[in-house]
Amino acid sequence: MKKLSIVCFSGDFDRAVAAFTMATGAAAVNYEVNLFFTFWGLNIVKKRRGRSFIGKGFLARIFNFLGGGFKNLPLSRLNFLGASPKLMVRMMKKRNVATLNELVQAAIQLNVKLYACEMSMIILGLEKEDFIPEIKEVLGVAKFLEISEGGQTLFI
Amino acid sequence: MKKLSIVCFSGDFDRAVAAFTMATGAAAVNYEVNLFFTFWGLNIVKKRRGRSFIGKGFLARIFNFLGGGFKNLPLSRLNFLGASPKLMVRMMKKRNVATLNELVQAAIQLNVKLYACEMSMIILGLEKEDFIPEIKEVLGVAKFLEISEGGQTLFI
Amino acid sequence: MKKLSIVCFSGDFDRAVAAFTMATGAAAVNYEVNLFFTFWGLNIVKKRRGRSFIGKGFLARIFNFLGGGFKNLPLSRLNFLGASPKLMVRMMKKRNVATLNELVQAAIQLNVKLYACEMSMIILGLEKEDFIPEIKEVLGVAKFLEISEGGQTLFI
Repeated sequence: MKKLSIVCFSGDFDRAVAAFTMATGAAAVNYEVNLFFTFWGLNIVKKRRGRSFIGKGFLARIFNFLGGGFKNLPLSRLNFLGASPKLMVRMMKKRNVATLNELVQAAIQLNVKLYACEMSMIILGLEKEDFIPEIKEVLGVAKFLEISEGGQTLFI
Repeated sequence: MKKLSIVCFSGDFDRAVAAFTMATGAAAVNYEVNLFFTFWGLNIVKKRRGRSFIGKGFLARIFNFLGGGFKNLPLSRLNFLGASPKLMVRMMKKRNVATLNELVQAAIQLNVKLYACEMSMIILGLEKEDFIPEIKEVLGVAKFLEISEGGQTLFI
Repeated sequence: MKKLSIVCFSGDFDRAVAAFTMATGAAAVNYEVNLFFTFWGLNIVKKRRGRSFIGKGFLARIFNFLGGGFKNLPLSRLNFLGASPKLMVRMMKKRNVATLNELVQAAIQLNVKLYACEMSMIILGLEKEDFIPEIKEVLGVAKFLEISEGGQTLFI
């Protein structure tokens, strides 16, 4: 079985859309697809409201402030001009392209596997319950490499 | 035949230079090289003057404003200090390193294949005629994976 | 022997941490690991104090100003909020996660190979003596591809 693995490091809306577009596109043609969320990418799979505040440190709180699940992701370039991911979602809808929310749902239905990175969860003081339940497992680098071995691997 | 495929997501000048440096370097040692332009990366292969304005929506117009072909690409970090890609081009010339324009031409002559991403063209309201004629084809994810399978693939 | 190769393009602190976390994690389970520092990534392996100023051009001086070895790396997102890599290092220490400095040392001890990119050194007017002595070799693209062939390759 062909394989695509993506390290989702960025929490930017456009990069998240790119990651999920590739993931669902690959899964639709029967690839085994693994998404490994790390650092800012963890924002994409964070529960919207979970614990009253996530993590205990200062950095964790900043991370929490920045984040809040895929509805609030910053957009890497357009934000500088005051445009927002909301605008892009509207535009994607108008053109009948799947929005990130729909892409995440489609990925899950297409059996894309979602993993969270152990190390960045430790740095940011996050726990498994802070993420959407579709996060299958919390993994370290060694396990991720074992899973991705023999396929195409991208860092987004 | 060995293979290198690059997803050119970023439209930043420095990242575009990195992508084309790797592409031409690989092609020069007989790799099959595929460049897949998506989202901001489409700016690199956009015609300078084509239709009076490209795309129809608001986001498309912002994209158009930001872009305009590889002569106007932003530089990811230096721009913050007011330096410009023009400065870097001058510096590259002074040191006899190929500029992006030359790298694009070299890539084409070395038979590097350029593709545009269907999905991001739909989102941004772009059409095939908006790009330089060297864009060989407009592709979806499935086709891209088929082309890149078995080689090294980078996301830039 | 399984292989992981990383093109370290970014000089951002968080991305450097990601690169070295993956590198050391892979080396710990007996991967051959190659790190190829290019453009902003060269900052990670630059000597703190070397020549009184590094490089001769204007761009080289800006690069020098931005950089200065891994103790001064910018943090891609948090910097916008005024937080600094120093804060993150403190937090990493509090949580007993290896800091970048320790990760670089660990990488070297785990026999991770560090290379510098010839082309970007030419653009930026840098020489081999500007880098930490652990930089094994200065390479072009062709040589890098030869080294990374057959393994997983990431662009960070």
